[in-house]
Amino acid sequence: MIDLVQPLLNGERRALARMLTALENERPGYETALAALYPHTGRAWIVGITGAPGTGKSSLVSALAKAYRARGQTVAILAVDPTSPFTGGAILGDRIRMRDLAGDAGVFIRSMATRGSLGGLARATRDAIRVMDAAGFDRVLVETVGAGQSEIDIVRAAYTTIVIEAPGLGDDVQAIKAGILEIADVLAVNKADLSGADNTVRGLRAMLELGHPASRTELLQHHGQLMSVEPSANGHNAPLWMPPIVRTVATNGQGVDELLDAIEQHREHVLSAGLVELERAHIEIEIYERLRETLLLRFLQALPGDTLADMLRRVQAREIDPRGAVSELMGLVGNQAIG
Amino acid sequence: MIDLVQPLLNGERRALARMLTALENERPGYETALAALYPHTGRAWIVGITGAPGTGKSSLVSALAKAYRARGQTVAILAVDPTSPFTGGAILGDRIRMRDLAGDAGVFIRSMATRGSLGGLARATRDAIRVMDAAGFDRVLVETVGAGQSEIDIVRAAYTTIVIEAPGLGDDVQAIKAGILEIADVLAVNKADLSGADNTVRGLRAMLELGHPASRTELLQHHGQLMSVEPSANGHNAPLWMPPIVRTVATNGQGVDELLDAIEQHREHVLSAGLVELERAHIEIEIYERLRETLLLRFLQALPGDTLADMLRRVQAREIDPRGAVSELMGLVGNQAIG
Repeated sequence: MIDLVQPLLNGERRALARMLTALENERPGYETALAALYPHTGRAWIVGITGAPGTGKSSLVSALAKAYRARGQTVAILAVDPTSPFTGGAILGDRIRMRDLAGDAGVFIRSMATRGSLGGLARATRDAIRVMDAAGFDRVLVETVGAGQSEIDIVRAAYTTIVIEAPGLGDDVQAIKAGILEIADVLAVNKADLSGADNTVRGLRAMLELGHPASRTELLQHHGQLMSVEPSANGHNAPLWMPPIVRTVATNGQGVDELLDAIEQHREHVLSAGLVELERAHIEIEIYERLRETLLLRFLQALPGDTLADMLRRVQAREIDPRGAVSELMGLVGNQAIG
Repeated sequence: MIDLVQPLLNGERRALARMLTALENERPGYETALAALYPHTGRAWIVGITGAPGTGKSSLVSALAKAYRARGQTVAILAVDPTSPFTGGAILGDRIRMRDLAGDAGVFIRSMATRGSLGGLARATRDAIRVMDAAGFDRVLVETVGAGQSEIDIVRAAYTTIVIEAPGLGDDVQAIKAGILEIADVLAVNKADLSGADNTVRGLRAMLELGHPASRTELLQHHGQLMSVEPSANGHNAPLWMPPIVRTVATNGQGVDELLDAIEQHREHVLSAGLVELERAHIEIEIYERLRETLLLRFLQALPGDTLADMLRRVQAREIDPRGAVSELMGLVGNQAIG
């Protein structure tokens, strides 16, 4: 695996593809290779793209990649599909994209579907972004189908998050928007040639005026992701970013340049307001996630033989409630252990 | 708080409402009260209901509650809204439902929105279901807006999961379905009076035939949720459940009785195939979640002063990668600790 590192850093696409396969399959040695690549990360700008079904995400991502290429920047696209292998894990619009962007060495496209746990997918996504970053791409576009637990995961990895909306997606979309809006740095109303587009834009504007108050770091703090790191004074004094609303028609390219401009303006904003703080928050979250899993595994290994099975039986028999069970288990191993 | 327990068990709605508020706000003493209620749980049948935006979820849940009432069963509805307080946390169709079902003591409706972390919401949801169960309701219907991380969370708490679809929700809905289908025990095609309904049913049937292979326990295993518990022979020998597809029109009640029948048939199936195993899997997942958080907090407390901040700085300076950082931190505290 380690022999892929230098070719990958030299820009060889085949080494990149093999490295991505290796990390996806957790092949022996992939962690050492990732560690060797890590010092070469931190140069790409990472753009997360999500949105409800039916908004035309895949087409818009393709259009965006072409627009970046027209400005001479290299682009890697990572399409993350949280659907499961049980049902085949269909990769969204992948073939369409391949056709559109094929033959351009400045674009690299990769899809990743669930292998194992959802947490595993989030970890693999983060690793894949780093590998693409180390491979020297100027922009990494991370697209998710927007199902399941993916939105917050995008926030965790991306520096700029685009939420795509489209007219006419049903009556209780409003409530979804409320949740997804808060992670948006840029809003795209795609299919803007449809008749309801003005309404969609108006609705989004009204919701933004209701309050898109929090900085990205505050948002992560709110969601209980950050525990120890104080937001820097820099972050707090920075002017708030108001997400612009950009109308696009991915199928004919309308508005795509404006969307790209909005992303780049957000990039300038983050770079001046404190990328350091945002990146530190991402790292903190990742370390906590890894610690949680590592600590749990060690803890379970340290439990005597049938302790866990017996405790599950007692909880199920209503002899003890789950909170009490955890206290008791912690007393068995935790006390002479941590702290 | 503990003084609410007896009135709640006696069926006093005011005590129930106050208990739910207490757990939502984590008022002092709520954990003791929950522990006192826990032995009285395990009687309600828990039905999770999710689906994409625009499918008419809220109306269908109301209609279902009315149908249960017509059969003499009591129903509690828990509408879980993972949208955040930053943007107001709109509660879906809550007022409509209130109007429809008001004045019937056999129905209880409660909405819960995010307070603090998403993990916190999942925990509060689980606790609220238990409280409703202890209060003596025959059926607890848990509805989520289907945004964010909610679908898998429903699987974790529900015994029967309904996924609602509807015709004409856009072009890449198919891919979403693939992910959401695997958690469905019963599929409802709502708005079945619309012209595209036949297509929706056909599409779902095709996907089901492609393979809805896994038992609920296997699914949880696949998602990395279960580590130690072996599926029982009982579970493995049980015949697989093929999710029925039921057409409904929530607004005029069409198909709602059939949907109710499908839920009850699934209940019979689970009861005969091994509720014990499913419930044990739920409990195992909950205990792991609680252990992860408890262990992480203890670990961070045990770290010397600036260790974490210093490590974050080193990761950010690319002196060490996140995996390496976790190994090093574990070496500092973990080794003399657990295991």
